[in-house]
Amino acid sequence: MYAVVVVGVDPALLDDELGRARGVAGVSSDGELDATQLLEVAGRFEALAQAIGGHDAIPDDPFEQLVRAVGAVFDSWQGAPARTYRLHHDIDESMGTAVNVQSMVYGNAGSTSASGVLFTRDPATGERGVFGEYLADAQGEDVVSGMRTPQPLREAARTASDQVTFEQAFPEQWRELEAVCTTLEQHYREVQDVEFTVERGTLFVLQTRRAKRTVLAELRTAIEMVDEQLIEPDDAVRRVPARELPKLLAPQVVDLDRLELAARGIAASPGAATGEVAVTAQDAVARAATGADVVLVRGETTASDIAGMLAARGIVTARGGATSHAAVVARGAGRPAVTGCTQLQVDEAAGVVRLGDGRELRAGDRITIDGTTGTVAIGTGTLEPARVDPRLARLLDWADARRTLVVRANADTGADAARAHELGAQGIGLCRTEHMVFDPDRLPHFTRAILATDPQERADALDAFAPQVQAEFEAMFAAMPGEPVTIRLLDPPLHEFLPGSREDAERIGAATGLDPVHLLRAAGALREANPMLGHRGVRLGITAPDIYRHQASVIARATASARARGIDARPQVMVPLVSEPRELREIRAVIEAGLDVGMGDGPRAGETPEVPIPIGAMLETPRACVLADRIAAHADFVSFGTNDLTQLTWGISRDDAGSFLGRYREEHVVDHDPFGQVDVDAVGALVAMAVERVRAVAPDIEVGVCGEHGGDPASIAFFASAGVDYVSCSPPRVPGARLAAAQAALAQEVERENGREVARPAAPATPVPMA
Amino acid sequence: MYAVVVVGVDPALLDDELGRARGVAGVSSDGELDATQLLEVAGRFEALAQAIGGHDAIPDDPFEQLVRAVGAVFDSWQGAPARTYRLHHDIDESMGTAVNVQSMVYGNAGSTSASGVLFTRDPATGERGVFGEYLADAQGEDVVSGMRTPQPLREAARTASDQVTFEQAFPEQWRELEAVCTTLEQHYREVQDVEFTVERGTLFVLQTRRAKRTVLAELRTAIEMVDEQLIEPDDAVRRVPARELPKLLAPQVVDLDRLELAARGIAASPGAATGEVAVTAQDAVARAATGADVVLVRGETTASDIAGMLAARGIVTARGGATSHAAVVARGAGRPAVTGCTQLQVDEAAGVVRLGDGRELRAGDRITIDGTTGTVAIGTGTLEPARVDPRLARLLDWADARRTLVVRANADTGADAARAHELGAQGIGLCRTEHMVFDPDRLPHFTRAILATDPQERADALDAFAPQVQAEFEAMFAAMPGEPVTIRLLDPPLHEFLPGSREDAERIGAATGLDPVHLLRAAGALREANPMLGHRGVRLGITAPDIYRHQASVIARATASARARGIDARPQVMVPLVSEPRELREIRAVIEAGLDVGMGDGPRAGETPEVPIPIGAMLETPRACVLADRIAAHADFVSFGTNDLTQLTWGISRDDAGSFLGRYREEHVVDHDPFGQVDVDAVGALVAMAVERVRAVAPDIEVGVCGEHGGDPASIAFFASAGVDYVSCSPPRVPGARLAAAQAALAQEVERENGREVARPAAPATPVPMA
Repeated sequence: MYAVVVVGVDPALLDDELGRARGVAGVSSDGELDATQLLEVAGRFEALAQAIGGHDAIPDDPFEQLVRAVGAVFDSWQGAPARTYRLHHDIDESMGTAVNVQSMVYGNAGSTSASGVLFTRDPATGERGVFGEYLADAQGEDVVSGMRTPQPLREAARTASDQVTFEQAFPEQWRELEAVCTTLEQHYREVQDVEFTVERGTLFVLQTRRAKRTVLAELRTAIEMVDEQLIEPDDAVRRVPARELPKLLAPQVVDLDRLELAARGIAASPGAATGEVAVTAQDAVARAATGADVVLVRGETTASDIAGMLAARGIVTARGGATSHAAVVARGAGRPAVTGCTQLQVDEAAGVVRLGDGRELRAGDRITIDGTTGTVAIGTGTLEPARVDPRLARLLDWADARRTLVVRANADTGADAARAHELGAQGIGLCRTEHMVFDPDRLPHFTRAILATDPQERADALDAFAPQVQAEFEAMFAAMPGEPVTIRLLDPPLHEFLPGSREDAERIGAATGLDPVHLLRAAGALREANPMLGHRGVRLGITAPDIYRHQASVIARATASARARGIDARPQVMVPLVSEPRELREIRAVIEAGLDVGMGDGPRAGETPEVPIPIGAMLETPRACVLADRIAAHADFVSFGTNDLTQLTWGISRDDAGSFLGRYREEHVVDHDPFGQVDVDAVGALVAMAVERVRAVAPDIEVGVCGEHGGDPASIAFFASAGVDYVSCSPPRVPGARLAAAQAALAQEVERENGREVARPAAPATPVPMA
Repeated sequence: MYAVVVVGVDPALLDDELGRARGVAGVSSDGELDATQLLEVAGRFEALAQAIGGHDAIPDDPFEQLVRAVGAVFDSWQGAPARTYRLHHDIDESMGTAVNVQSMVYGNAGSTSASGVLFTRDPATGERGVFGEYLADAQGEDVVSGMRTPQPLREAARTASDQVTFEQAFPEQWRELEAVCTTLEQHYREVQDVEFTVERGTLFVLQTRRAKRTVLAELRTAIEMVDEQLIEPDDAVRRVPARELPKLLAPQVVDLDRLELAARGIAASPGAATGEVAVTAQDAVARAATGADVVLVRGETTASDIAGMLAARGIVTARGGATSHAAVVARGAGRPAVTGCTQLQVDEAAGVVRLGDGRELRAGDRITIDGTTGTVAIGTGTLEPARVDPRLARLLDWADARRTLVVRANADTGADAARAHELGAQGIGLCRTEHMVFDPDRLPHFTRAILATDPQERADALDAFAPQVQAEFEAMFAAMPGEPVTIRLLDPPLHEFLPGSREDAERIGAATGLDPVHLLRAAGALREANPMLGHRGVRLGITAPDIYRHQASVIARATASARARGIDARPQVMVPLVSEPRELREIRAVIEAGLDVGMGDGPRAGETPEVPIPIGAMLETPRACVLADRIAAHADFVSFGTNDLTQLTWGISRDDAGSFLGRYREEHVVDHDPFGQVDVDAVGALVAMAVERVRAVAPDIEVGVCGEHGGDPASIAFFASAGVDYVSCSPPRVPGARLAAAQAALAQEVERENGREVARPAAPATPVPMA
């Protein structure tokens, strides 16, 4: 350990020496080496350390050794693995680390000694009962290193008859250990991750800390601890990490039986993945960079594999147990993992994985893994969304009782809206009508509409696919009865609907009867240097009012039709990219004209109750934020489009940011990807200013957020403090958003009780593993 | 008049009736028709009026006629001509009009009667002395209608012996009229535009108003009225329209009428040019190299056309407005330009320009352009250099004594800097280093630098053209001794420097020895969806620090070399597109390292006085404005880039805005082109907020504006009130900016004297002609 951590010797070199000594001695485990042999190995170790660290690499003075060891741990804060980990988990660079110095106890002092690690509950599933492993006559290092196969603690966890459980071998210490676990849980009211050693029959607890666990385990333990009256429902709401909830909805493989089995191992991290085999972290990163799904297969993993593990969809190791490095990292990162597949042999140099029966998987071959059952199979499995845990429903009920922020979903189809409703969305905050137009059956008609040379021709082309669009709207209303369905009028520049290549032009030409050369020329004439800043959104509405008027009429017709069928349809019309109050004033008249037409046409329109259709503005330019009060004067509601607002506030295109944003994060020029977590300093400042200005003139109109940030827990905390009424996010993020909104409300309550101003959300304090 | 103005009869129909009556009577002028004949014409007129306006079109009651006439004048405020005029002259829609009712006098009451119009001084040149025309036995309408040829007023203005001057025919009334003109000028202290009538020997002055006149006349009359002690120098400064000054400095084409019109477009950069058509930048460079005068005609221009634009005498584009790339570069380089000639179609491949009427111009054909009027004509016009009026120098001296705002220039070469200095610029506020790189001799080296695979290769490629760049910097320092020369480090994304077409790739390939296919592939890999929001500015500096470090070293070397030659060189290094304080902190270290290298290398560096080289940030994203105080903490100065700030605040690309901004102005969705006049409501609000925040933490650092708005008088008035220290604009706009800055200072002084807060600039109160 000293040679590796303090001097920097490659552990593989030390392993080689031990292996050579075992070979010479003709034994299979290190413990069988005798004192002379070990002395010789120790000499070789020292020689290696001196080769790397110089003559003084291992000083004789033990206190000097201690000082250096302490220094090495401090230094590890700046090591590559810790930096990668912090980056991934958004941990503050400036926190630093602590070093704890303890006197040593020896688990390798013979057959009455042992070392083990345990969780007070199962870290993968949350199941009650001590869960762990141990090795007799061994140090803690040996248990987690994967060099020897650890034995189960409990009789109940026995999986093979030749196993010797701790309960069996150390019955007295087992009882004592169980009691300690209960005490620790009662004291901390949290699942504990405990390291222990038995030295010549005496139990020592070396360390206890909050157990890192899957979100599934977090959820289950939180709910069960409420039932055990260890914690309150509010604690459960606070405790389950909102940003991890999507993992509970992560896909499962449904046809594993169909595939050929490659190996079985330990179900180390739940979920399923399918992808190309990579046998090194570098290969995993490289393949993922091309957009491929990757499964990383390693003998065992170390801190230097972190980047590859995060790049991969799933992780397999040949060695190690449920508490190995691979298992811990995979659970933290929400990657499925199967560890301890002892039949597998990974040959990095050759780029192959040898199966127990002599077959080989080559890098790039496709495999499927199920981390919930511990299975590795050859080929591509079918992944399906997981069934929602009933415990989640309980947690979200508690959360819903606490939160004040409304959570809606972004959805463009009746099916998406139905799923969003299942997941608890209280309406649709953003329906992107362009997604309806991009449908291959509808696009040719819309192409004709764009190129129409007179109003009638355009109207005919738009009418040609209006029934399908109307049906989609009606399906969304039906999925969200009594809840707002916010429909954004067409947003992208028109050239995005025209063919971009000769093949596209020929296809659209065939479907529309338009000349492909004409189509390409029209597309070329409309093309823009910076389409994000181009002729789109309300600008289209003003220069080509036919389109918005027609969209409004279809919305009204769908509303009248749905209401006639008894559905409480509550559409809202949202105008994108408004930057100037007069834009909204002018387009509002166009939309109202369209709504009148559509309502007039509707079946039995006169008989349906008159619920007006609100018209609102999407605030997504900095100018819209500065002039929010004046825009709100013409709006029934406003909603921040924080994606575009972030692009414009920073002057960064989401599509092009990849070329530098990674470097920016590595060099800490930015703390977060501003498209993932709202940039509170500037984008947030503009949002907060706009909310304040809107409230000053129109205290009652609804203010929402419909950018991707609406599903990000840290952003939700900010929006709640800024006084926003609702957020809207993609359906899978709805449960997390509900939970995050409750957490934000609880945090605000605490702040209020403490008499402080409601502060901006701080980074979560997550424990940091060392190298 | 009544039929036309009140009833709406087409005046051509009335003219037809009169013509028919003259034909029947066998006379050549209306005055020769007798009473019976006139009565018959009047009957036909009435019939026409009733055909349009119904039975009651001309009521018998004269008071009812008067009421309707007054109503018609009020209505004319909303007529198309008045609206167009207001749009063009930025006149507030809400002002409305007044109606003046006078009793009638008759200039057509026989040979002792007459009507005339005059200016108290020449409205084209400003020359002293009454200037005008009259007709005996005629109404005022007849003088301006062009039906009869008016006669000169003064004997001195006689141009033909058969003319009968007013001075000759009405000597007594002429003396009286001269005295009235003197009285009016003394009273109003302004050149007057007077209408008069003599009725049976008695002189009546019908109307007097401020005379509209050319800027040349404004200048001359203002100066002479100071000398005549009619007005104060401050009045002269207030009176001359700052935005018109560039017209005094541009060459003029004197025989445009003689040439055949090819197209009309936007008068994007004043002055005139004549030369051979080139349709690509390469062709322009090649033709110019043979000594030919060239006019570059492009669909639109991009940064890669710079060399061709600089090689050309003038620039024409089919697309883009007054602030397109072509317009900005042309104004900056002092080239006349006509943009947005929508009738033109440029076919690069065929080397032809298609005119609206089907004719074609081929590369090499000669054309003449007038950027002051927005005209493109076929053939070779005669150009005359504008004489710089010595009176301008006097006016600007008065202006300089009043203004507090410093005026600098945007310039990229020593020659431009020298011209800027002549025009009174107090330093260079923006030198765009990319323009130095686009030079055809240097671009291949920079291409090699971009594609270099190791640092040494890149350094060698950059060093290959460093001496030329250094020489350009030294020329700029020499042109601006003791004044700041603000050098902006490389701003565009790298793909703009790589070839965009196979031909470019082959040319650059031949010059660099690089494989053209590789060049095209590299360009493709770097291409961006939205380059304006892309990997550019400081983002390049951080991801490829070699380039900024090298630029800094060349700046330092040029400084050391210039100082060694006794030139008081004052460079400033400006970092573009800073959005985050940490960007500036990080890049500042890179720049300082580069400066150290360059200073160390300089000849006799140790002997030159140590004047530090300030490092500042360009504030051009909304985020930079919000965080201006935190950015200023790392900056020695800041300068607003209001072009990009406008693009981002609105979410509008300058290059693409043409497709809807015209419509927006017509429909009054916006009052001004926000790229021409700063959008005070939002962009201005962000600038003002940023200035305030910067001043709060760093009261002494210099705050400038270097966007195109720096040359716009209305914007300058705003920047002065926002507390900016300097503006920087293209050299031809410098005199206008000096004048506008003085006008702003005078306006602020008046506001202060009136005890009011310094208000935002209002639209100028310009008189509005009726239909």
